[in-house]
Amino acid sequence: MNYRFSQRISTLQPSAIREILKTASDPGVISLAAGNPSAQAFPLEALRRITADVMAQTPIPALQYSVSEGYEPLRQTIARFVSQRESISCAPQECLIVSGAQQALDFSARCLCDEGDAIICESPSFIGALNAFRSYNVKLVGVELLEDGMDIDTLEQALSQNPRTRFIYVIPNFQNPAGLTTSLAKRQTIYALARRHNVMIVEDNPYGDLRFRGQPLPSLKSMDTDGRVIYCGSFSKVIAPGLRLAYTIAPQPVIAKFTVAKQCADVHTNMLTQIVCQRFLMEEDMDAHVSRLRTLYKDKCDLMLSAMDAHFPQTVTYTRPEGGLFLWVTLPQETDMLDFCRRAAARKVAVVPGNAFNVDENMASRSFRLNFSTPSDSQIQEGIAILGELL
Amino acid sequence: MNYRFSQRISTLQPSAIREILKTASDPGVISLAAGNPSAQAFPLEALRRITADVMAQTPIPALQYSVSEGYEPLRQTIARFVSQRESISCAPQECLIVSGAQQALDFSARCLCDEGDAIICESPSFIGALNAFRSYNVKLVGVELLEDGMDIDTLEQALSQNPRTRFIYVIPNFQNPAGLTTSLAKRQTIYALARRHNVMIVEDNPYGDLRFRGQPLPSLKSMDTDGRVIYCGSFSKVIAPGLRLAYTIAPQPVIAKFTVAKQCADVHTNMLTQIVCQRFLMEEDMDAHVSRLRTLYKDKCDLMLSAMDAHFPQTVTYTRPEGGLFLWVTLPQETDMLDFCRRAAARKVAVVPGNAFNVDENMASRSFRLNFSTPSDSQIQEGIAILGELL
Repeated sequence: MNYRFSQRISTLQPSAIREILKTASDPGVISLAAGNPSAQAFPLEALRRITADVMAQTPIPALQYSVSEGYEPLRQTIARFVSQRESISCAPQECLIVSGAQQALDFSARCLCDEGDAIICESPSFIGALNAFRSYNVKLVGVELLEDGMDIDTLEQALSQNPRTRFIYVIPNFQNPAGLTTSLAKRQTIYALARRHNVMIVEDNPYGDLRFRGQPLPSLKSMDTDGRVIYCGSFSKVIAPGLRLAYTIAPQPVIAKFTVAKQCADVHTNMLTQIVCQRFLMEEDMDAHVSRLRTLYKDKCDLMLSAMDAHFPQTVTYTRPEGGLFLWVTLPQETDMLDFCRRAAARKVAVVPGNAFNVDENMASRSFRLNFSTPSDSQIQEGIAILGELL
Repeated sequence: MNYRFSQRISTLQPSAIREILKTASDPGVISLAAGNPSAQAFPLEALRRITADVMAQTPIPALQYSVSEGYEPLRQTIARFVSQRESISCAPQECLIVSGAQQALDFSARCLCDEGDAIICESPSFIGALNAFRSYNVKLVGVELLEDGMDIDTLEQALSQNPRTRFIYVIPNFQNPAGLTTSLAKRQTIYALARRHNVMIVEDNPYGDLRFRGQPLPSLKSMDTDGRVIYCGSFSKVIAPGLRLAYTIAPQPVIAKFTVAKQCADVHTNMLTQIVCQRFLMEEDMDAHVSRLRTLYKDKCDLMLSAMDAHFPQTVTYTRPEGGLFLWVTLPQETDMLDFCRRAAARKVAVVPGNAFNVDENMASRSFRLNFSTPSDSQIQEGIAILGELL
């Protein structure tokens, strides 16, 4: 039969990155395209021990249906966790457990936007968020991301010109894809503008714990005096992404609506994982674990940067991230970036073309994204050398 | 601040059942309101052994990001599983792994319906599906569920009067909430009508394996010669619901769109769970396991029915299910069902008022749902005796 799909899904393309990942899983390819944590980053011994213990001691709660809000001890532990690590004060009732931060981004559009409403986001921005937002037939308004965060003049203009804006979407730390961090001054300005225009902010912070240079900056949520910030935190980068576990911190009326969305979407998040991660947070030394990850990623980032310094011509520019997993390379004017990515693929090096992260994918881009967490050290050196030859 | 939510979520109420479950978790309450498998039904030893083994032998794939379609060996195993158990022939590419069957129901509306489109469903029907459908601003059209399936005249009328119908939603085996099974003749008629009106069918079969009386009937999917059935299967009732693992079988163009929805919704399903369940299906004797569950639920169902026969007046009618977890009680005319449920709650027996399962919750109902899988044998006897006194 001829299938007829909804407008919201018909216009969406499969995520370019997830499609690239499929081809990049060919063992002959050096993939600098992924966003996976390093396999060395997983706290294997602790997860093994706690999982066995939960299955031995308390298997029934791990296997039975539970409430949509999430495992109560985990909500409590997270409330303490974000208070200590991000100076966010919240009650457990202001925390919802989700199946990956992607789900919280999806719920933000689902619960806050009618069709035709607008969302303002950084340009470039995280493709998973952009696609989730698009799938609710909203208008995406991109604001250029500068070295220290969104261009404030353009943001003001975007807010004025789009009275149906429901929220501003920000990844303040080591942004995906650009690797840039929003300055304290800009965080304050973005919050003030959201207030003046009475819009919400969705703050996505999957990489915050992975700062390996510079000083930590306060989250937008920690400045949130009037309950307009929805904060998305994730265990994908500090525990393990395959477990699909994350959380959102928001005012109780927002959590109540997100909970209704959660009932519709998948009832509740995997209970075995919720219990294991709650115990991990309680029993393990998170500071020591995170500090180990920072060293791991700093070394990989520095290795990639020094290889780039050695192999790339000076006309090519790139970000020097203070944390996270990504850096962003911009080719000289007149260069055909897509052609470059294709030639790299032909030499079996995968990178992600920058236009994939634009609000309008057809908008030209001279940039591409590199990931330093997934490849091995020798793959980083070899991959960058090949890219350097092609440049 | 004053929050403004999307229309789709503003009109939705939290699931009545999940709200009841929260109060019913009070240990003093006899809950006949849940839909949980019996804790005795979980294959604890096998899950414990396999989980430990996966964490020891192949922890990285269990913890790392993966593809949205699902763990390939699990898709292959499920393709064989539904071929053997449900005579559904499909390729692994026609199978998508989801985080609970609820997610497949959500995707059905998300991918097939624009706002204002119609979905035809049994009345009463599964509240989780109805709420997910409502959240896409679709029109729900209820068709009365008779002893042997939907009333066919009303179904024909509904199809003729609603040209924007996108699919018919059916739970053919031991329906939730009514405990009724659609006859073979009606399955064939529903399929023929869907064909004539060129609409899809979403077949939800979470309980199919739990048949403890009568002869198995072929699924609608097994009759699907032209690719119009989206089949939803689940491991929640035969392995464990807390793991949130299910699958959908559909033609490849539908799976392709569902995969895009999956990328937006939660990227992919928990990998540890996918690997554990794949090995469970390969290594364990599913026939023996399922046969044990059937005996367990048959005994509980028969215990509840004989207690009802003993304690309920003859003016009260109820279904005698051939499988599944639920039965459906209808009070005599002129009885105030909601008042009865309230009086039962005051005596600390929780049941679910039937109107919760209606397309229009404000429509009167004289029925309520009872669950026999969750309560212990003595709770069944005591709970039914109290309900009998109140009747």
